[in-house]
Amino acid sequence: MKGTELPTTAARIIAVDTYDIRFPTSRELDGSDAMNIAPDYSAAYLVLRTSAGGQDGHGFTFTIGRGNDVQVAAIASLREHIIGRPVAELCADPGSLYRDLIGDSQLRWLGPEKGVMHMAIGAVMNAVWDLAAKRQGKPLWLLLADADPAWLVAQVDFRYIADALTPEEALELLTKGRQGADERAADLRRRGYPAYTTTPGWLGYSDQKLTRLAKQAVADGFTQIKLKVGADRADDIRRCRTAREAIGPDIRLAIDANQRWNVAEAIEWTGALAEFEPYWIEEPTSPDDVLGHAAIRRGVQPVKVATGEHVQNRIIFKQLLQADAIDILQLDSARVGGVNENLAILLLAAKFGVPVCPHAGGVGLCELVQHLSMFDYVALSGTTEDRTIEFVDHLHQHFRNPVVISDGHYRAPGEPGFSATMHQAAIDTFTYPGGAFWAADLAEPKREECL
Amino acid sequence: MKGTELPTTAARIIAVDTYDIRFPTSRELDGSDAMNIAPDYSAAYLVLRTSAGGQDGHGFTFTIGRGNDVQVAAIASLREHIIGRPVAELCADPGSLYRDLIGDSQLRWLGPEKGVMHMAIGAVMNAVWDLAAKRQGKPLWLLLADADPAWLVAQVDFRYIADALTPEEALELLTKGRQGADERAADLRRRGYPAYTTTPGWLGYSDQKLTRLAKQAVADGFTQIKLKVGADRADDIRRCRTAREAIGPDIRLAIDANQRWNVAEAIEWTGALAEFEPYWIEEPTSPDDVLGHAAIRRGVQPVKVATGEHVQNRIIFKQLLQADAIDILQLDSARVGGVNENLAILLLAAKFGVPVCPHAGGVGLCELVQHLSMFDYVALSGTTEDRTIEFVDHLHQHFRNPVVISDGHYRAPGEPGFSATMHQAAIDTFTYPGGAFWAADLAEPKREECL
Repeated sequence: MKGTELPTTAARIIAVDTYDIRFPTSRELDGSDAMNIAPDYSAAYLVLRTSAGGQDGHGFTFTIGRGNDVQVAAIASLREHIIGRPVAELCADPGSLYRDLIGDSQLRWLGPEKGVMHMAIGAVMNAVWDLAAKRQGKPLWLLLADADPAWLVAQVDFRYIADALTPEEALELLTKGRQGADERAADLRRRGYPAYTTTPGWLGYSDQKLTRLAKQAVADGFTQIKLKVGADRADDIRRCRTAREAIGPDIRLAIDANQRWNVAEAIEWTGALAEFEPYWIEEPTSPDDVLGHAAIRRGVQPVKVATGEHVQNRIIFKQLLQADAIDILQLDSARVGGVNENLAILLLAAKFGVPVCPHAGGVGLCELVQHLSMFDYVALSGTTEDRTIEFVDHLHQHFRNPVVISDGHYRAPGEPGFSATMHQAAIDTFTYPGGAFWAADLAEPKREECL
Repeated sequence: MKGTELPTTAARIIAVDTYDIRFPTSRELDGSDAMNIAPDYSAAYLVLRTSAGGQDGHGFTFTIGRGNDVQVAAIASLREHIIGRPVAELCADPGSLYRDLIGDSQLRWLGPEKGVMHMAIGAVMNAVWDLAAKRQGKPLWLLLADADPAWLVAQVDFRYIADALTPEEALELLTKGRQGADERAADLRRRGYPAYTTTPGWLGYSDQKLTRLAKQAVADGFTQIKLKVGADRADDIRRCRTAREAIGPDIRLAIDANQRWNVAEAIEWTGALAEFEPYWIEEPTSPDDVLGHAAIRRGVQPVKVATGEHVQNRIIFKQLLQADAIDILQLDSARVGGVNENLAILLLAAKFGVPVCPHAGGVGLCELVQHLSMFDYVALSGTTEDRTIEFVDHLHQHFRNPVVISDGHYRAPGEPGFSATMHQAAIDTFTYPGGAFWAADLAEPKREECL
């Protein structure tokens, strides 16, 4: 440390740099499903710059293209809450910022706790936890697993969920979760955390490509794959048959309708695919429809019902659990209010005994969410039984610490932080519309324009 | 018509002008409640300009200050769906644009159908209906009341609500609603539509001001007033007593907690105010908590439960009705996807027999929502029994056709349109941060800075 520098404890947040990063994934039909026809996987990305220099916090939320600029504007609108905060205090209690952000009496009108503003809060909080983990020199999963249970409870906002989970119950769950945590951490470092893959199942793929990728998935050690359904029933029957033939009877086959159906349609359509023994039906209808999911669950048993990637906050998750509406809870690292709200959601799932199988894919969602599941295994639920994290093999190369998958498992990250940091070259290339890729692409005369 | 002009039928939308308009209401504590401490009432406002000239569509959504810029950015992100649309086609079927906006496969990731993006869609659709009503030379309520029931049904998106309301049921409700519509329209023009007032009840007001304004409300012909509660229980008991003494036993006293409570707290706190015979408890908890509202309703009877100003879409309203969670449905003109989605919500309320008492106040919400209730009376529910529209006497002077209240009733608007058009002078003065008011205000040295 040079003599002229301030001591680290006095470091403050001095800038919140934002980036509109978009990848042209729609050109390959990677990521296409019944509702999301042609996504350009994007990140509304931010960097918390500190006066300490060097050590920054990186975070983002995921979108699928248009509107990523609105998402970035929402992150920028939070700046005044962040700039000037002492880094040490912020990292010692991320919940203090979280409470200020969700409690901003003017901004909460735009939600509350949902949609663009809430995803912006999630992106910021993810960056704060990245910074906190880097400062502790630990991967985030280990920071959380090592943390004092009472401190973790204080990171959670119990408003609107106390009828299902009290702070006292949360403390009890976390205290119990610490028993045997060291052994599980060692096991996690040895085995990794189970993954399943969506790579074979996109709607835009041919049956040949589906068969090839499904067989490859089994060869790679995955014990579950997932297929997108819901656009055309005859196609779905053929594709489910194709997939089941490729993977055999012992590999789990999940199906995902991406909110395509009404309640009755969901029950009927899932029934038409029952002969292929789907393990779960994912997002059968609107993520807002708690009672609809409960009706669907009653109507499709023994097929399990899964949802979560679009569930806006802990309050909807609470009700999905209270109403016995889901068998599988699919939290998302960047949809809700960041790590703080995902702690609440993991605690709710543990209280109700419902397995968490996170949504991932997109841009960097695998990188983030692995930390949450690994913490859950080591220091909360204590098990990986019937638990698996989605894996999609897209865009990992743009991250400094990409996920590592081997034998169908996520390897436990060892690098400090939340694995959220992108390479500067990726940012420079794919920033929209001024980055090198887009500037060249947008300058190019388009086919339509030439005709 | 001049020879060089295009025929009106060829007119197109040529621009979507957007404005960030903010009024400095926080300086008077008008509008303060337990959650919204110091709102600066704002409008994310747009004008659809047409190549016909003269006849434009005006619309907006309401916010309470910070973040209004994000809301404006969201409206602007919808431009590419709107520019170039033929005006006649758009006005003949606003639902065509509505379906395109909520169906944009990339933008829906940012909701779906909730928060900032959905409010932006609502603002745009409100502007389209304003334009359509102006072109027909009718106030919007009359356009809707005169419309063919089958055409109205086609304006509704039944996705995610068909388990509670089918298109066939909607058609039946609207067809039945037409019986006696002419007599009710005449009655409406004569009597107006019942209003209640929130003017006396803001948290920031002294007991003397509360008493004076409550007595004034009764003298002005209102049969219901509303008090904000939820910040301090002893204060609430004193203020409810003060209000009840001022208005006597026969005037309804509604109370409004603005989402302040958990479920158990809501039941207990409302119980502590029961001796003052509140007519309804409004927003006792999170607007997302369907099951919570149902539990609260069971716990506070005979006090009625009301909510809606923050309910994000028809899917949550559907569940509030399915779960017997509310006695009063408080739709908002600018929270959901505009007139099209509010038609769905009015139909759901009619199906379940729950009275609609809209949220209003803010900037221009009274101006808009009166049209929806008046349509409901004339051509859907057919009654004003136990129905009343909120009225707050703020900021009406900035609108070209402000609401007219007499003897506790909204007078039926006669001017063509949706009453959404603001005076250009108001726009020029209160646009943030460049309008005349804000430019002067922001240039002024602040107290803190001088000390």
